[in-house]
Amino acid sequence: MNELEIAVAPMYRLCKKARAERVSEAAAKELAKALEDIGVKIAKEALDYAMYAGRKTIKAEDIEIATRKVTGKLFFDYY
Amino acid sequence: MNELEIAVAPMYRLCKKARAERVSEAAAKELAKALEDIGVKIAKEALDYAMYAGRKTIKAEDIEIATRKVTGKLFFDYY
Repeated sequence: MNELEIAVAPMYRLCKKARAERVSEAAAKELAKALEDIGVKIAKEALDYAMYAGRKTIKAEDIEIATRKVTGKLFFDYY
Repeated sequence: MNELEIAVAPMYRLCKKARAERVSEAAAKELAKALEDIGVKIAKEALDYAMYAGRKTIKAEDIEIATRKVTGKLFFDYY
């Protein structure tokens, strides 16, 4: 079994924010898993940026640029 | 203040999974915020798919296709 770092309970609240009325338990788990995968991907990119800048510490600015890279800038323009 | 649904503590563990040695607190918060935004975006897309399929309940399959749409299929091919 994969153990998830991101808790499942808050996923229901994210879906409520998106105006969903009902969310299956499997869907909530799937969302937690998806966000965990995306989070690790963003962290990997952020680490690349930090190291490129001569740092070993990931800073907020590294996360910001890594997020844009992983999700595509268009997502944020649209969102 | 924006209240985040996703906890900050697990963000450090996601960064460890990405082989990061050190992560600033601001970076961990930024990652939680980014994943929350992405999560709501995925949930909105998933709700669209559920409604298109004549359901009010978001299922795991809706989350799967919504995740591919939001992140771009290329991300998963690459990852």
